[in-house]
Amino acid sequence: MATPRHALFALDPAATTPLYRQIYDRIRGAIASGALKPGDRVPSARALTAELGVARGTIDAAYGLLSAEGYIEARGQAGTVVTPGLKHRAPVVAPRLRSEPAAPSFRPDTVLPLQMGLPALDGFPRKIWARLGARRARATQHIDMAQPPLFGLPALREEVATYLRVSRGLDCSPSQVFITSGFRQTMTLVTRAVLKAGDRAWVEDPGYPPARRILDAMGVRVAPVPVDSEGIVVAEGVRLAPRAKLAVVTPAHQSPLSVSLSLPRRLALLDWAAQSGAFIVEDDYDGEYRYVSRPLPALGSLDREGRVIYAGTFSKVLFPSLRLAYVVVPTGLIERFEEVFQVFAGDAPELTQSIVAAFIKEGHFARHIQRMRACYAQRRAWTVAGLGQALGPGVRIDTQPGGMHLILRFPGRWSDRRLVARMRDDGLYAEALTDWSVQGNGSPALLVSFTNVTSHDEAKALGTRINRLR
Amino acid sequence: MATPRHALFALDPAATTPLYRQIYDRIRGAIASGALKPGDRVPSARALTAELGVARGTIDAAYGLLSAEGYIEARGQAGTVVTPGLKHRAPVVAPRLRSEPAAPSFRPDTVLPLQMGLPALDGFPRKIWARLGARRARATQHIDMAQPPLFGLPALREEVATYLRVSRGLDCSPSQVFITSGFRQTMTLVTRAVLKAGDRAWVEDPGYPPARRILDAMGVRVAPVPVDSEGIVVAEGVRLAPRAKLAVVTPAHQSPLSVSLSLPRRLALLDWAAQSGAFIVEDDYDGEYRYVSRPLPALGSLDREGRVIYAGTFSKVLFPSLRLAYVVVPTGLIERFEEVFQVFAGDAPELTQSIVAAFIKEGHFARHIQRMRACYAQRRAWTVAGLGQALGPGVRIDTQPGGMHLILRFPGRWSDRRLVARMRDDGLYAEALTDWSVQGNGSPALLVSFTNVTSHDEAKALGTRINRLR
Repeated sequence: MATPRHALFALDPAATTPLYRQIYDRIRGAIASGALKPGDRVPSARALTAELGVARGTIDAAYGLLSAEGYIEARGQAGTVVTPGLKHRAPVVAPRLRSEPAAPSFRPDTVLPLQMGLPALDGFPRKIWARLGARRARATQHIDMAQPPLFGLPALREEVATYLRVSRGLDCSPSQVFITSGFRQTMTLVTRAVLKAGDRAWVEDPGYPPARRILDAMGVRVAPVPVDSEGIVVAEGVRLAPRAKLAVVTPAHQSPLSVSLSLPRRLALLDWAAQSGAFIVEDDYDGEYRYVSRPLPALGSLDREGRVIYAGTFSKVLFPSLRLAYVVVPTGLIERFEEVFQVFAGDAPELTQSIVAAFIKEGHFARHIQRMRACYAQRRAWTVAGLGQALGPGVRIDTQPGGMHLILRFPGRWSDRRLVARMRDDGLYAEALTDWSVQGNGSPALLVSFTNVTSHDEAKALGTRINRLR
Repeated sequence: MATPRHALFALDPAATTPLYRQIYDRIRGAIASGALKPGDRVPSARALTAELGVARGTIDAAYGLLSAEGYIEARGQAGTVVTPGLKHRAPVVAPRLRSEPAAPSFRPDTVLPLQMGLPALDGFPRKIWARLGARRARATQHIDMAQPPLFGLPALREEVATYLRVSRGLDCSPSQVFITSGFRQTMTLVTRAVLKAGDRAWVEDPGYPPARRILDAMGVRVAPVPVDSEGIVVAEGVRLAPRAKLAVVTPAHQSPLSVSLSLPRRLALLDWAAQSGAFIVEDDYDGEYRYVSRPLPALGSLDREGRVIYAGTFSKVLFPSLRLAYVVVPTGLIERFEEVFQVFAGDAPELTQSIVAAFIKEGHFARHIQRMRACYAQRRAWTVAGLGQALGPGVRIDTQPGGMHLILRFPGRWSDRRLVARMRDDGLYAEALTDWSVQGNGSPALLVSFTNVTSHDEAKALGTRINRLR
């Protein structure tokens, strides 16, 4: 069935609602009302751009969000359709209290099967890397041995700004980019720059444990805000801690549930921040890795009020032992961050910064990400199929459109922590979703990464091992 | 005149005073009483070792301290003598209040003549470094790409422990060594590990500004303690802030006055810490670089109560842009530091850690330090002579037995800040001693480094330029 275009896209260029949101609202409304049904085709972005005379970026933003939220699906040659089998999704996490304390963090000495937080180690272009490393080491000049520039190597700040403008839709200049030695350091620097002890900060629940541990250790009072199928529930945050000064969120793929923050939520979050003078940390740790549509633009690309502090890292797109990350701050905060960096500095070595700057400049970075996206799509499919086959129909595998791990849910009553402990004894890696939940509430589930699973058979064999341990 | 050995060295092995201190006390007492006069020979360490039947290390410790404090001088073939012209030294810094705020920190984009904080950039074995760098980059295994071990690469922790045992007299195991990305990061981690907001900490006045800025930014109340010719005046610290929980000191060469902390002060400091339950940060940033005797053993080598936290860095012995440092903690604090590193981590890349581990293991590190010691002795002599000639007899150049910079004092009333500003306008580097003093008190003086001055003529030319700007 062809889409009734003109009815859907009666846009109002004079309205205060931005055009991309009008498009998003129209399509979502049409789906909700039944005017567009699962399987129906929606016009291609290219066709719509021409027809409506709006910028291609506007359509991309709307479609990207609809796709991220699971409303539409790209089908290659067959065009884009409303997702077959689409229905209103229930909240992923049921709020439920437990008193069990969180398990201690665990870091193995070797790389274990299914280990989270790692890119595909066999997919990294090590030869190119070693050649650049050798070249940079040989090219070291006297000035390169002195204390590196406090805010980061100018060449790297420039490459990062260019990359973010092109790939993440962020309108930023090199002076807004500060180089750090990892997300944790970024968080301590952000906390110093915009918070004081006793301030409150929203964190996602479930959410990345190091973020709340750092805030906590720095005397910030953490307000856990629930996450549902549209990401952090902004209204709940406003109810729980309206005067919070910071919100730490993972809009692209919520960590760990991998859902994308919906457009209404994005706008509600930005509104709240603008009205209350709060800042938002957008932790975009793996925003590049989406498999069913192009990557979503960053939350920061919608920010008109200078509230979004964008935190990026090379840990996932290159590798973790590089210890290289960055933070992009609104122009209004540049001076404040410069002050903080005068005292605490970024501390990334000149060598790693200059290797990465060259790696990006020479095009290896963009090629690597593109190759990894295809690689991960393949490995993810293998892993979903292989684990599914081995674990049987009772297991539910959440397949969100992006991210670097899967979420396995078993039927009946079970303890994810106990299974994780058994798996580690058996040399397998997994994390327990309850450990990612504040105070251990939240449904049990296994978090496992597919990035280093290299075949369907391997996935099936891993599933068989897990099955034996259940 | 021969030394009356037996009278001097009637040691009491049963006394609670350690033997090396008995030897130190005897010689210092003999000098004070006039029994030993300037120019008198003292027995060689080797002869005394044989004669008294004590360990060579015991004699070395006593002589090292006496030499560091300026009481005795090694004269090569001529043996060791009581320093000619020795008299009781007056305090270096007269306490004097000023309300002028400290100048902002300055970091040039290029390397300027006389720039402080830099090793001899032309003396670094860049070819060896590049070869190791290339080799390590090529040898990267999958496990090396994962998050590096939280407390540091085991190979590097081991090399550092071995090095410190041999070169700095520190009795430590690899599990006490934690790798960080610089002295600033070390300070933030130490603060988290042993202090809470509102605690007091002694800092040296004058002293390294970043140390007190970090403590200050972390909510620690800083107590500036004056420094005289024997280092930090411990009695003043006890008077000003007896219940401080931390003392940050630079015992080898006080930063910036380059005086060594005398043995009585070392013992008083350790006593105070043991009795009050405080910790001492020994910032040993350039302990290797002494020119008139062998390096002093570290303060930590005298610590029997587990109060000394030893902070080392590769910034001076290798180069600053490496961003690699370490902290050695008493065994009683290992667990506490492990907890802190779980949250905040060390964040040094695997690549730089493994290059440095190889650099030490293969002997390049020890050779480099030895070569640099000779190089700096030469450049220091050139600089003292060249500047002295150009600046005339009115200028006083403090020549302490170690360190990487000189202190120039001009006669009459003058502003070191104003001269520093004029020098920088002219492309010359210097720092103002008043900027290193808390609240800007302290005598005016120029701090200039000799590490990159490569000839007497160059030093003289630089002196002529400074003279024109006075």
